[in-house]
Amino acid sequence: MSRIAYKDVMILLVEDDEGHAELIKDCLKETGVDNPIRRFRDGQEILDYLFEGPETKKELAGGYLVLLDIRIPKVDGQEVLRRIKSDERLKSLPVVMLTTTDDPREVQASYRMGCNAYLTKPVDYESFTELIRYLGQFIRILRIAPIEE
Amino acid sequence: MSRIAYKDVMILLVEDDEGHAELIKDCLKETGVDNPIRRFRDGQEILDYLFEGPETKKELAGGYLVLLDIRIPKVDGQEVLRRIKSDERLKSLPVVMLTTTDDPREVQASYRMGCNAYLTKPVDYESFTELIRYLGQFIRILRIAPIEE
Repeated sequence: MSRIAYKDVMILLVEDDEGHAELIKDCLKETGVDNPIRRFRDGQEILDYLFEGPETKKELAGGYLVLLDIRIPKVDGQEVLRRIKSDERLKSLPVVMLTTTDDPREVQASYRMGCNAYLTKPVDYESFTELIRYLGQFIRILRIAPIEE
Repeated sequence: MSRIAYKDVMILLVEDDEGHAELIKDCLKETGVDNPIRRFRDGQEILDYLFEGPETKKELAGGYLVLLDIRIPKVDGQEVLRRIKSDERLKSLPVVMLTTTDDPREVQASYRMGCNAYLTKPVDYESFTELIRYLGQFIRILRIAPIEE
């Protein structure tokens, strides 16, 4: 099993809001996070990619980090989290919830299902960009495991 | 269930190395993390605190965040992680592995057991303090769930 170089980690961003998705991508880049980012617009899209996509196999050599909104179409973020964390192959994949709510029941439910971190998007622009910068700096120091082997 | 104010989160630092423990505490404070920090010198100490300590009950109103070294006396960090994450009451508690190794097998094993993040302590002083500052900023934006209710 080989170490994953930071640059080989692919960020999977699950976000239906166009504005939020662009802001998150821009802020991560500004923070020096130059990893490839793949965006998904709903829960079904990322499940198809992780569980069925033929290209996934090719990309599995590096690691993944999932940034997951909760209120998304088709399959909600909690269910996407549950599917990832109950799959033997995928459960080591870090999943960061990045959502608008800070309801403590939702926070607790997410941690109990195995989310790796729970962040609440601030409403005002400046705090939002600051949060993404801090997240970006954290991504740069985080060790990520290869999924297979 | 009530929201946990950031200031109510208690940091449980499990670190046998005196120098590392002081450095981590100092850097967190410099980053503006003014949460109470409770330090444990081995794995048994924190297990006693979490599973048996009478004072734990009182402190449970706020949340916890565990910073966990792996190579610690008596009970190693992997076993402490396993005990926390297999306990129904404690599994929602965020556990950050903060250790000297970056062996991908250990990284993967930790994520599979449910660690929330895995960080490797850099050898040189400057990178170490930078890592703790980034960790501190991340702690300040992280939502943490109450353990009970």
